[in-house]
Amino acid sequence: MSDRDAGSTPGRRLDAEARLTPGGEVEARIARFQVVLRELGLDAALVTQNADLFYLSGTVQESHLYVPVEGEATLFVRKTVARARVESALARQVPLPSLRALGGLIREHHGGLPATIGLELDVLPVNRFRRYESLLPEARFADIGPALVRLRAVKSPYEVERVRASAAVAVEVFRRVPGILREGMTEVEFAGRVEAEARSLGHQGVIRMRAFNGEMFYGQLLTGVSGGVSSFLDTPLAGSGLSPAVAQGASFKPIARGEPVVFDFVPAVDGYLADFTRMFVIGGFADERFDAAYACARRAQDEVMRVARPGVTCRSVYEAAVAVADEAGLGAHFMGHGPAQVRFIGHGVGLELDELPVLSPNDLVLEEGMVFACEPKFVFPQLGAIGIENTWVVRGDGVERLTTAPEEIVVL
Amino acid sequence: MSDRDAGSTPGRRLDAEARLTPGGEVEARIARFQVVLRELGLDAALVTQNADLFYLSGTVQESHLYVPVEGEATLFVRKTVARARVESALARQVPLPSLRALGGLIREHHGGLPATIGLELDVLPVNRFRRYESLLPEARFADIGPALVRLRAVKSPYEVERVRASAAVAVEVFRRVPGILREGMTEVEFAGRVEAEARSLGHQGVIRMRAFNGEMFYGQLLTGVSGGVSSFLDTPLAGSGLSPAVAQGASFKPIARGEPVVFDFVPAVDGYLADFTRMFVIGGFADERFDAAYACARRAQDEVMRVARPGVTCRSVYEAAVAVADEAGLGAHFMGHGPAQVRFIGHGVGLELDELPVLSPNDLVLEEGMVFACEPKFVFPQLGAIGIENTWVVRGDGVERLTTAPEEIVVL
Repeated sequence: MSDRDAGSTPGRRLDAEARLTPGGEVEARIARFQVVLRELGLDAALVTQNADLFYLSGTVQESHLYVPVEGEATLFVRKTVARARVESALARQVPLPSLRALGGLIREHHGGLPATIGLELDVLPVNRFRRYESLLPEARFADIGPALVRLRAVKSPYEVERVRASAAVAVEVFRRVPGILREGMTEVEFAGRVEAEARSLGHQGVIRMRAFNGEMFYGQLLTGVSGGVSSFLDTPLAGSGLSPAVAQGASFKPIARGEPVVFDFVPAVDGYLADFTRMFVIGGFADERFDAAYACARRAQDEVMRVARPGVTCRSVYEAAVAVADEAGLGAHFMGHGPAQVRFIGHGVGLELDELPVLSPNDLVLEEGMVFACEPKFVFPQLGAIGIENTWVVRGDGVERLTTAPEEIVVL
Repeated sequence: MSDRDAGSTPGRRLDAEARLTPGGEVEARIARFQVVLRELGLDAALVTQNADLFYLSGTVQESHLYVPVEGEATLFVRKTVARARVESALARQVPLPSLRALGGLIREHHGGLPATIGLELDVLPVNRFRRYESLLPEARFADIGPALVRLRAVKSPYEVERVRASAAVAVEVFRRVPGILREGMTEVEFAGRVEAEARSLGHQGVIRMRAFNGEMFYGQLLTGVSGGVSSFLDTPLAGSGLSPAVAQGASFKPIARGEPVVFDFVPAVDGYLADFTRMFVIGGFADERFDAAYACARRAQDEVMRVARPGVTCRSVYEAAVAVADEAGLGAHFMGHGPAQVRFIGHGVGLELDELPVLSPNDLVLEEGMVFACEPKFVFPQLGAIGIENTWVVRGDGVERLTTAPEEIVVL
């Protein structure tokens, strides 16, 4: 039951049933969360969503994590009790035979029922919420979703190293692309082989998003015209996908010479995500605008990294990138084109792909320990897309890149 | 914009941006849904969840599908308007500039606001629901989630053929396993290569589940002891996964001679899923109980297929299978072991993996057109799991298998 060694070399994990999240992490996260509960004037919170549960307890076993504003938290475990005991460092774990028993068990283990209780109302389905209302009829319920999302935006040093380890898988897969990518193969065949490499390096497959209807499968490997296809998600690129049923990502389009190959890849290791984009082309671009746009994307990234540091608003960072695109006369192609243009240049990453900070015109201030992906990209409809994306952590005096790979376009 | 050819041969789809779901299907589904609205006494429904939206409109572009109890439905499309017009056969499509505009647009296009309106309260997050409450303050809201799930349980002939086409991908991947599976490779390396084959055949990657916190990545390729590891999901097998962060599926465990290799695979093509399990072993089982248990699983399946037909309850089907396991003295190992034993032997499949009918002790009556996976499996803790799974459609006089592959254990 010792905490696992979890270094930054991809592909050497063993013993998935051991504990992953150290006890000290869980303890510190719950303590920070209790400060939030106090600020919100809540007596307790009941946490149930997988990403939040993993964050605060170290397990996704079917549980209700009860966090009182003061004192020890209790993990009420429905399934699997034995596994939760191994996976979570929380000392207080109580089997939950059925949801009906929840009120009684809270009373028994916490000396009474809370008057005010926080739930993740941003993700909790209405019917489940109503079930809690009927189980705890005296309680007043409040939304702790946004506060928990805000809390999770600032990563501990341990978490930053987990994102770095995840990023290392993206970089290693990127290094293997020249051995895979061939003219004439379909996007989805290319994607499948890339995904197999990722799996062999420990990619968990599952990519969590918090947004309702949010779906992501490894990222978006898009070539030529596919890069110009937008879809339902709030992303600069989407791709047509294999059918309208999923409507994003790789398609059956064959990969051709001279067109931009967008390698937008989301690694996911031990729960933690990063986001990473590099460009490939077979034989050099047929259209010279792509080289110019890529140079501009890198300048936008440079400008963002010059500006980004603790105390700076997301708005300032966003505007710095937009100014670079506008100065180059490429503003109409920046982060999408026409009605599909999006108003952000990056997003937080961690246990979910759509975390804070969002690098858009908003007033959230960057803090040390925040981790975000910055993805200046240009879209030329009917032609393709091009851009770069790295994942960064905010340090005391600036930002540090976690996705350490060469940034030049790879010509095959 | 013609409806695509979509036969049962895997791997020959093209042109993902074309329409997939025929106009006649969408029309018939909405007409059936309107009957449900009438029975529930509702004036209208507002459908927003991806699977339901795809079912009723043919697109997952960010939309609100407004279905009045009588008359034509309107798809209010936020993003991407152009794509929804291609993907959905619905004639009435209206751009939705922002959620705030919804009430006014409903009034404008439907001659007024509904007094009672159905929402998918089983999946809709509380905060989104509250937004609708504030946007339509005069309306009384009702839950149409369960009714829509019930409606979707009975597939049209078109849908049955989509499940069949999806099943064909699982069968083709199964045929390729002997070329992939090797002693000493890790489960996840094996899984990655299997997944790459599936992708090249048109697997969409994304597997939708309706349950809160429901997550599934291609199924569960589990070997030896991994087959005996349960987890948070309501499934007979789960596997340890790569870490507690996901806690299910393939792990870093190397595959050994003599142990059962459970090939439990979920194909997903054009939105439609199936579920399929076959067994492999390198060099024959080290423990003779596996051969006996597999023979019993097949007998249980035979018995289920003898019993299952329109008019029969799920309970009868479930009990028929349990009786076979009990008679063989294997009841304690059937569908899990100890506290991890589950009380079902199968589940509906379609656009989501957790559909109706659930083959458990419940009184839902089978109907022609229902599609379900039946998965009699045995778990021997510390040793492994074994079983079989096919996807079936209920016909007028019995059931028809959609996953047509040999059922013998494949010895490598």
